[in-house]
Amino acid sequence: MTTRTLRIALAQHDFPVGDVAGNRARIVELMQIARDEHGADVVLFPELAVSGYPPEDLLLQPGFLHDCEQAVASIAAQAQGIVAVVGWPQRAGGGLYNAASVLRDGTVAATHRKCELPNYGVFDERRYFTADADAAPCVFEVAGVRMGLLVCEDLWLPGPLAAAVAGGAELALVVNASPYERGKHAQRDAMMAERSRDSGAGIVYLNLVGGQDDLVFDGASLAADGDGTVHPAALAFAEELLLLEYDADARTFAPLHWIDDGDESMDALAWRAVTRGLQDYCRKNGFDRVWLGLSGGIDSALVLALAVDALGADRVTAVALPSRYTAGLSNDLAAEQCRALGVKLETVPIEPAFQGLLQSLSAMFEGQAADVTEENLQSRCRGVIMMALANKFGGLLLTTGNKSEYAVGYATIYGDMCGGYAPLKDLYKTEVYGLSKWRNTVGGAPVIPPAVIARAPSAELRDNQTDQDSLPAYDVLDGILYRHVDQEQSREEIVAAGYAAEVVDRVLRLVRSGEWKRHQAAPGPKVSRRAFSRERRYPISNGYRG
Amino acid sequence: MTTRTLRIALAQHDFPVGDVAGNRARIVELMQIARDEHGADVVLFPELAVSGYPPEDLLLQPGFLHDCEQAVASIAAQAQGIVAVVGWPQRAGGGLYNAASVLRDGTVAATHRKCELPNYGVFDERRYFTADADAAPCVFEVAGVRMGLLVCEDLWLPGPLAAAVAGGAELALVVNASPYERGKHAQRDAMMAERSRDSGAGIVYLNLVGGQDDLVFDGASLAADGDGTVHPAALAFAEELLLLEYDADARTFAPLHWIDDGDESMDALAWRAVTRGLQDYCRKNGFDRVWLGLSGGIDSALVLALAVDALGADRVTAVALPSRYTAGLSNDLAAEQCRALGVKLETVPIEPAFQGLLQSLSAMFEGQAADVTEENLQSRCRGVIMMALANKFGGLLLTTGNKSEYAVGYATIYGDMCGGYAPLKDLYKTEVYGLSKWRNTVGGAPVIPPAVIARAPSAELRDNQTDQDSLPAYDVLDGILYRHVDQEQSREEIVAAGYAAEVVDRVLRLVRSGEWKRHQAAPGPKVSRRAFSRERRYPISNGYRG
Repeated sequence: MTTRTLRIALAQHDFPVGDVAGNRARIVELMQIARDEHGADVVLFPELAVSGYPPEDLLLQPGFLHDCEQAVASIAAQAQGIVAVVGWPQRAGGGLYNAASVLRDGTVAATHRKCELPNYGVFDERRYFTADADAAPCVFEVAGVRMGLLVCEDLWLPGPLAAAVAGGAELALVVNASPYERGKHAQRDAMMAERSRDSGAGIVYLNLVGGQDDLVFDGASLAADGDGTVHPAALAFAEELLLLEYDADARTFAPLHWIDDGDESMDALAWRAVTRGLQDYCRKNGFDRVWLGLSGGIDSALVLALAVDALGADRVTAVALPSRYTAGLSNDLAAEQCRALGVKLETVPIEPAFQGLLQSLSAMFEGQAADVTEENLQSRCRGVIMMALANKFGGLLLTTGNKSEYAVGYATIYGDMCGGYAPLKDLYKTEVYGLSKWRNTVGGAPVIPPAVIARAPSAELRDNQTDQDSLPAYDVLDGILYRHVDQEQSREEIVAAGYAAEVVDRVLRLVRSGEWKRHQAAPGPKVSRRAFSRERRYPISNGYRG
Repeated sequence: MTTRTLRIALAQHDFPVGDVAGNRARIVELMQIARDEHGADVVLFPELAVSGYPPEDLLLQPGFLHDCEQAVASIAAQAQGIVAVVGWPQRAGGGLYNAASVLRDGTVAATHRKCELPNYGVFDERRYFTADADAAPCVFEVAGVRMGLLVCEDLWLPGPLAAAVAGGAELALVVNASPYERGKHAQRDAMMAERSRDSGAGIVYLNLVGGQDDLVFDGASLAADGDGTVHPAALAFAEELLLLEYDADARTFAPLHWIDDGDESMDALAWRAVTRGLQDYCRKNGFDRVWLGLSGGIDSALVLALAVDALGADRVTAVALPSRYTAGLSNDLAAEQCRALGVKLETVPIEPAFQGLLQSLSAMFEGQAADVTEENLQSRCRGVIMMALANKFGGLLLTTGNKSEYAVGYATIYGDMCGGYAPLKDLYKTEVYGLSKWRNTVGGAPVIPPAVIARAPSAELRDNQTDQDSLPAYDVLDGILYRHVDQEQSREEIVAAGYAAEVVDRVLRLVRSGEWKRHQAAPGPKVSRRAFSRERRYPISNGYRG
């Protein structure tokens, strides 16, 4: 008796949302490479590879669904000499299903419809799809090996895999679109180990890769032997067509060269998530360059370093926007960083713009004391100038706010919040410091001047201002915010954890009153387990004071 | 045998989202009035009256749910001498339910958990709640009459009412949180007639009233006799505590004075929806006044008239922001309208601000031809100035864009899109004209100068500019947009309807490329069946070209 060995290709690629024609072509091309160059028996594509994930309300357009159907028919016609598993939105019997089909011998041979539809966090699958909870498992045979097919969330509950194994599967193929968040790798490893051990089946876990607005899919595809041994199979945040060999009798994956993904620390992965998110936002929206205002502070310094890593120095333009309140040190540090990174630095003084606005407003403001209005005006001069540069010369304006600022509204709407993408949106200020320090430890000379990390944070909108004039110390602030935003703790729980009641009350009030600004904020890549925007949906009009 | 007659009070009131303490107090007060002043046997409160609707991710805070539970216990303790039906989010057995409880004799006597959870359009109920589809119907008796309890969507499917009737109900009490949209009244009437006729039971339909961010709940509560006769019971968009008498033997509501809600035309209801939405946004977010830029064009003129109807002339300040491109007629018309409405008009010339910005940018822009950048700069001068006024003097800035502009991105982000609330966000330009003409036909002298309605629309950002230099005629544009946005028609379908292919392609391309701006737009009241924002969720990064 010969060994039953199966060669499985995993197309860990980016399949952009909406690009049905491009995704069809990419799938066909990768299918042919898997067959002709790698001799694969089976090739897997990610969840909803035809439509991209998440397609959101494109799924409500009948014309879009029709185009997806045509694409699947076209791919199926070319599935010869290899079996392809392709994810797509399937209309059937009046319902819409999150489907993965087995394409072979020129036809759609079988289809699994997702049983478990996530409708929490960033997911809205029950808005679109019908769950196929009672269907028979989709088990099919290739080269004498029987395998079951699952889609993403199906694997996070024990039922669907158990049903496939009961239906004869010796191997589970799981196609995913699972966005990155801190700690997700460890969760997936643990879940894969448990499922494979409990079922005795080998499991292949293919994940999508690429940035899509505020999500970044991290790839990092996996395989698990039937005894619960989990193998890292592919790089995180990188595209590759990967080949695995499964020994169906031993229920093990042959000892390939398993991936060493390098530094898998929280900081390293966050860095890769944010740079990948920025790269893909630019590419998918047609921006060949980015702009940012460089203040001499840590947030914009970190965004500059990220942008250079993501896009290269020649696609980034930094702009210093000094005012009368800008310290000489700020200008020096901005120049120093640009020199070190080889980035072009422009300087646009805001004083003429600020004075012009004050002159327009002079009759209305006569006799009024200066207050936060004038501070906001300076920030808005900068925002308007940066938008004018992006309008005139083309490119994407990056906004440099961090999660602490978004949380408490410590940002000027239509001012420093101007921009199309917010790389630091899901990183608290303390994490911004940590990530900056981490980046300076890898790859040669520091990319963020140590003096930027060392100095006290300031918006520089009035003399001798520091952030701590208006906000608690950032370690305190972030501690409260993490408990409130990420962990849903109540005021009482946070106070019980040792934070001063009046500080907690003030921070929670700021979080509430900043909601209208967050509703008008640019997207930025999710890194945490509870990012703002689609993952945290709050009313603006909100009477809750708890 | 005496007639079995039941007196039912309907608390068609606003129960603001999150205001658990206030809602508790309001429920208790209305319960006591219903009992002591009206002699009601039963009093109904809307769906989720304790938490407000929709509470969104407040439902993920355990502390919030705890507060709701405490509120219900407190209300129940005071339910003496009357039976109260109160909607609230109920934790039970590890799940969360959209519940309505029967409070009587100081306790929670029975509870119905919503069976049918809407998860389409503006609704996300499966994000939070478990459906209680298989539970026994909640049927209880008051004054010898057996009644069943349903929550909102439960009535839109035949099953839950049929189950209640099979369980002995002679009457159905339905508590709702149903947001207004065009044509909704006729839909509700038809559904009520069908359900009551099919079941033979009388039906009481109580709806929430009030604005909540981009939704406006319209009240307009109804009653239906067992033979399918539908009675309008309450005003639309108004708060009232209403009393009905139900004859359980005849299965009819006693001939009360049924409500004449006046002009129920599309325009009249849209007007009331938008004014109510604006009133409540201001009240719930603590704004005692509003600001708007008044250009002499129709959009800002209509917003001014709406704001005066909603808030009164003394709470509205209009600001003319003339530039070198502003026609003398524009300034005259702005002044004429403010005089007619008794609104204070301020004038802030933008030229100094514009020149100051150009001066800041002069080195960067040297040798560059003027283009749309300079047009955007003017719009942004206006936005920044309006925000400075709102910052300095307090109040809410209204933004005056319409649905056509939001759709095609014919608006300057961080410019005329600045503001916290967008009253016209869900009205196409042609509807803006229709509503303006309609408003001028009611209540005395025109509130919008007829010359504003008659003149060609222009952004006045360069000499002799009109909107039709950049856009198709508005009847053509809106025809295409309505098919694409509201009806999900494909390019091919729209072309087949008689629109020129190149115009359709251009409009659809504009809709796609405006998505990032809509993601940063202010909320505005839903009026149509497909409003932007929470009802139309589109990817920014979108490769679909269909």
